[in-house]
Amino acid sequence: MIDDAHMKKAMQAYIDHFNRADHAAIAGLYADDATVEDPVGSPVKTGKDAIAAFYKMAVSTGARLKLAAPIRGSHGNAAAMVFEVQLNMPEGEAVIRVIDVMTFNDAGQFSSMKAYWSRSDMVVLSGPGATKS
Amino acid sequence: MIDDAHMKKAMQAYIDHFNRADHAAIAGLYADDATVEDPVGSPVKTGKDAIAAFYKMAVSTGARLKLAAPIRGSHGNAAAMVFEVQLNMPEGEAVIRVIDVMTFNDAGQFSSMKAYWSRSDMVVLSGPGATKS
Repeated sequence: MIDDAHMKKAMQAYIDHFNRADHAAIAGLYADDATVEDPVGSPVKTGKDAIAAFYKMAVSTGARLKLAAPIRGSHGNAAAMVFEVQLNMPEGEAVIRVIDVMTFNDAGQFSSMKAYWSRSDMVVLSGPGATKS
Repeated sequence: MIDDAHMKKAMQAYIDHFNRADHAAIAGLYADDATVEDPVGSPVKTGKDAIAAFYKMAVSTGARLKLAAPIRGSHGNAAAMVFEVQLNMPEGEAVIRVIDVMTFNDAGQFSSMKAYWSRSDMVVLSGPGATKS
């Protein structure tokens, strides 16, 4: 079984690599046959090439990730974290509120990622499209 | 597919029922054939009786749940939330940092719950066992 500290370190590396727009380093955290479902309920991306292309696109938006609470481990090969995606959209400055769950293979790589967020978790903070609430 | 607003309302009801120690109301949010894995990596509890017994025990500890960020939905039949369990242990006042993921059946009931937390997510705040950090 994968060590809890290792899983949390890999989750933190994901955040840090993203915030340096280092898409290759993010993709390098994944196993060759890994899956990414972001958001949950959308088509699953499978394997190295699809995942690399996804993160190349994702970091090109200039988005930044900010943890909202400490990363959680588990008693198995899985960990979870809560964060906000901060990004500029045509509608203005926005955040998407996300929870990611990763599972790990025996080599300590991500074997799957699921990102929980819905349209109602996207909030425009300022600009012409600012969310009224 | 289950409405995002319904899922978030059910997640909030789970928190509220727990904080009233209303174990029957919590169990009532689950489908008859639902599963609970708390923490992830421990034996799965399956079905109405096992789940009802689990929550009867859980609320008897006097624990309280406090959301740490807004509940997240998804584009499918799943939602996630981050919270702290506040409880008194022999070692002192403690919190367990948890992320729960629920899936829903077509009737809008929880079909599964997974709770992500590890020993390193349990922190003793005060008393003889206070965590040094």
